[in-house]
Amino acid sequence: MPARKIIAPPAKLSSNELAALLENQTKAVNQALNKVLPPARTRPTTVHQAMRYSLFAGGKRLRPVLCLAAAAACKGDPRDAMPLACAVECIHTYSLIHDDLPAMDNDDFRRGKPTNHKVFGEGIAILAGDALLTQAFEIAAGCKGWARYPHRTIILELSQAAGSLQLIAGQVADLEGEGKKVSAAELRFIHERKTSALLRCAVRLGGMSANCTPAELQALSDFGYHVGLAFQVIDDILDVTQTSEQLGKTAGKDTAAQKATFPSIVGMKRSQTIARQLTQKAYASLDRFGARGATLRALAAHLLERTH
Amino acid sequence: MPARKIIAPPAKLSSNELAALLENQTKAVNQALNKVLPPARTRPTTVHQAMRYSLFAGGKRLRPVLCLAAAAACKGDPRDAMPLACAVECIHTYSLIHDDLPAMDNDDFRRGKPTNHKVFGEGIAILAGDALLTQAFEIAAGCKGWARYPHRTIILELSQAAGSLQLIAGQVADLEGEGKKVSAAELRFIHERKTSALLRCAVRLGGMSANCTPAELQALSDFGYHVGLAFQVIDDILDVTQTSEQLGKTAGKDTAAQKATFPSIVGMKRSQTIARQLTQKAYASLDRFGARGATLRALAAHLLERTH
Repeated sequence: MPARKIIAPPAKLSSNELAALLENQTKAVNQALNKVLPPARTRPTTVHQAMRYSLFAGGKRLRPVLCLAAAAACKGDPRDAMPLACAVECIHTYSLIHDDLPAMDNDDFRRGKPTNHKVFGEGIAILAGDALLTQAFEIAAGCKGWARYPHRTIILELSQAAGSLQLIAGQVADLEGEGKKVSAAELRFIHERKTSALLRCAVRLGGMSANCTPAELQALSDFGYHVGLAFQVIDDILDVTQTSEQLGKTAGKDTAAQKATFPSIVGMKRSQTIARQLTQKAYASLDRFGARGATLRALAAHLLERTH
Repeated sequence: MPARKIIAPPAKLSSNELAALLENQTKAVNQALNKVLPPARTRPTTVHQAMRYSLFAGGKRLRPVLCLAAAAACKGDPRDAMPLACAVECIHTYSLIHDDLPAMDNDDFRRGKPTNHKVFGEGIAILAGDALLTQAFEIAAGCKGWARYPHRTIILELSQAAGSLQLIAGQVADLEGEGKKVSAAELRFIHERKTSALLRCAVRLGGMSANCTPAELQALSDFGYHVGLAFQVIDDILDVTQTSEQLGKTAGKDTAAQKATFPSIVGMKRSQTIARQLTQKAYASLDRFGARGATLRALAAHLLERTH
């Protein structure tokens, strides 16, 4: 799908190499997303503008990049993974738009910009989210399909990760957990669904696009699960330690909303230890990929060291 | 999928036969939906209860019944069409839940019952809609797939009908048209997307589940398009002529919201003529199916004569 050539990663990535790879792949993902989304001038223009506003609001493209890296780890062509990377990003963006709504988290800022409903109004924001979710399946249906993973398997993978037992379950538990006392196990249930499910799905779909073996798929699942959990624990930590300016969104929101977070339940120090342990487990699941797992490993390290 | 046996329709249907067929197929559809939806007691229970609340709120199952009838018209087994019939009904229900939200039509009643957000709150209603939309693709991915219409074609069909150029485009135009002067051509654009697109999709998917010929698919498209438009024109007419009690939802809402309707633009008499003309065109597109099109024909007639 992308005309842009994607740089193949070296066996071990320096931080400069990772930065170059991230920049390169982010551009490739943006270009692919731009191609598959209806143009902003297509009628009804409001909803297409709203879809693009949030999709191109400077997201880090973490899930697409992980998806492409997983494909590479399984000797696949990242270009085959691209439709799936784009589909996951559309689902991620829809979930953010709906999550920010007044009836949900009621957030005014996201990535340093006014949230979708602040710009386009609640009605259009709801519809833009709906449209991105729907678009995700249209994009995914446009993938090649593989011997071990035909189209029906790809669509099942995506719909289950985004469905009421995973991504949406996390949102519901998050919404209903506000102001309530939540156990560490309960919080893990939320994080597994709210963050890990889709991230794990992105990595698995990358592997599927390389027609990976069942053992490779299991390793990628383990990797995605642990990176996803680590990512969310770090998000919780950053919400406490960083300013709104640093985050590009309202800091301290979780505390203000009396949301359960890892720091509020197990303390800051233990949270940082948990994040490191989760990342170690993620590393361990990459063993079978050898040098081909270098990018996935570098991405996991990058996530643990991020400050926003 | 459904254990219940579906009664095959006779060549020409009396109104009693149609009533029996509707009752029988509605039960079969309800049973199939009950099987594919997560149980209400599955965690997170709120969202599963909310999904089921609207899905089993007494809807007429018009789209699923048309889908099954289209399969029969193409000599298919309605049981093969059932997953697609269920998927379309999930998408229809999600669109109603979101459409009723305060940020959209702000409706308190639907089918004589409080709307989803009145019972479960706006946050859960948004998520229940999201979950039903996602579930639709999971259900559709579970279909058999056919030589002319493999899974990717089925998912494309569904996602395009529900997407930002069709169903969602109709919702947007509807939302933005409130209080504005709208031409008859503009209103047709809205109706084609808001109602005709998904109804046409239901009928086409029914044909696809019978591995129908391209010519049969075209005839079903024409049929669905015209029945869908007729259905919406009649909805507009009923909003003016019927009481809330008769409709099971707030009557006169369109007028109160200064929404453009066929009666408000071209007058009541002309609207009734248009509805009849559209149904005649729908009939004409059934010619090629001969006696096998009897149920589709009876359903179209049924829609034109409905009073609620």
